[in-house]
Amino acid sequence: MNSTPVSPQTLLNQLHWRYATKKFDVVKKIPADLWKALEQALVLSPSSYGLQPWKFTVITDPKVREQLKAVSWNQGQITEASHLVVFSGKKTLTPADVEHLIEATATTRHIPAATLDGYKQMMLGSVKSQIPEKLAIWNSRQVYIALGMFLSAAALLGVDACPMEGVTGPEYDKILGLDQQGFATLCVATAGYRAGDDHYAEGAKVRYPESEIMAHIH
Amino acid sequence: MNSTPVSPQTLLNQLHWRYATKKFDVVKKIPADLWKALEQALVLSPSSYGLQPWKFTVITDPKVREQLKAVSWNQGQITEASHLVVFSGKKTLTPADVEHLIEATATTRHIPAATLDGYKQMMLGSVKSQIPEKLAIWNSRQVYIALGMFLSAAALLGVDACPMEGVTGPEYDKILGLDQQGFATLCVATAGYRAGDDHYAEGAKVRYPESEIMAHIH
Repeated sequence: MNSTPVSPQTLLNQLHWRYATKKFDVVKKIPADLWKALEQALVLSPSSYGLQPWKFTVITDPKVREQLKAVSWNQGQITEASHLVVFSGKKTLTPADVEHLIEATATTRHIPAATLDGYKQMMLGSVKSQIPEKLAIWNSRQVYIALGMFLSAAALLGVDACPMEGVTGPEYDKILGLDQQGFATLCVATAGYRAGDDHYAEGAKVRYPESEIMAHIH
Repeated sequence: MNSTPVSPQTLLNQLHWRYATKKFDVVKKIPADLWKALEQALVLSPSSYGLQPWKFTVITDPKVREQLKAVSWNQGQITEASHLVVFSGKKTLTPADVEHLIEATATTRHIPAATLDGYKQMMLGSVKSQIPEKLAIWNSRQVYIALGMFLSAAALLGVDACPMEGVTGPEYDKILGLDQQGFATLCVATAGYRAGDDHYAEGAKVRYPESEIMAHIH
């Protein structure tokens, strides 16, 4: 069968086409319908137990982006890209987070919360058995799933992007008020369209041979 | 412009279609061309500095999968899905990892390694300033980008998948010999085709409202 919704060739073409964009076209903005789809890709990202321990902050305000650039090693993409998304994760998880998900699940699926008790106890077990630091690490990994989903979605829609960890998280938290909401900045993604003269677009993709990073047990 | 390689509607249809598959069709296997594309999606995943601190182990051998199932809370997908991928991350990073990437970059791009010295020093700075535990956490996040890329690619190709963290990493490491190679198992993904009677496929997707997980600064 080859009736895949997207062909393998289209998928791979786009994954080859993408690169960490260093210089964006400062004029060209992502059309609203495409941006909406990229936000939905974030919303639809999977997470452990479905806990969604994240907040995505989308910033187009140039003044706030100037402030953020100053705590991002002055990397140009922060202000020059069409859109900036800050990926933050919950600093811990509590039984209240579990309760919240159970309620949302019961409401969404029109089922009594009591039928979800096994699921709830499993989550409570995970949450209660870990110290906040470990829970923060667990959460941060989920946020990176969303980053992967976002970068993949952007590539497929023909939107350029650059994932960036070189930002001062605590300063971001202060500027964006994330800290008092219980979130910590982990990384950002800038998105838009590559500048015609971004020579990084031409560099061959550097990937280790499959024999090195992949093993097969047949 | 609406000449995107993949339409926003196709992207969102597939992201809505995907779900954490609990029960796979034990007969239906992923065709070779699609599986090859999914492996390439892993290879092409981005990582911080391009360090690719990961190993992906693809297991189709039923005996090894039985062994792994026993240390995965006996979850059926481990043996029933068409393919199983174990996602592992490097337990640390050393200057040798940096050196290796510089060499690969110089070779791939046909440039002298000396021209990459700024990039090299930046990476060495990051590697040398962190304790192994922090480097392992950093690596683990990159592995989760690859997980996100894989899950997204599978959805677009119409392949079902289930990301699973409920596996005993250290036992996986032993069975697969990852430990002595310097890797630690983080999670797995099973992939294949949903069974006709997996009632989880019918459950409405539970996502918090955008107002809760997304903020906009215009």
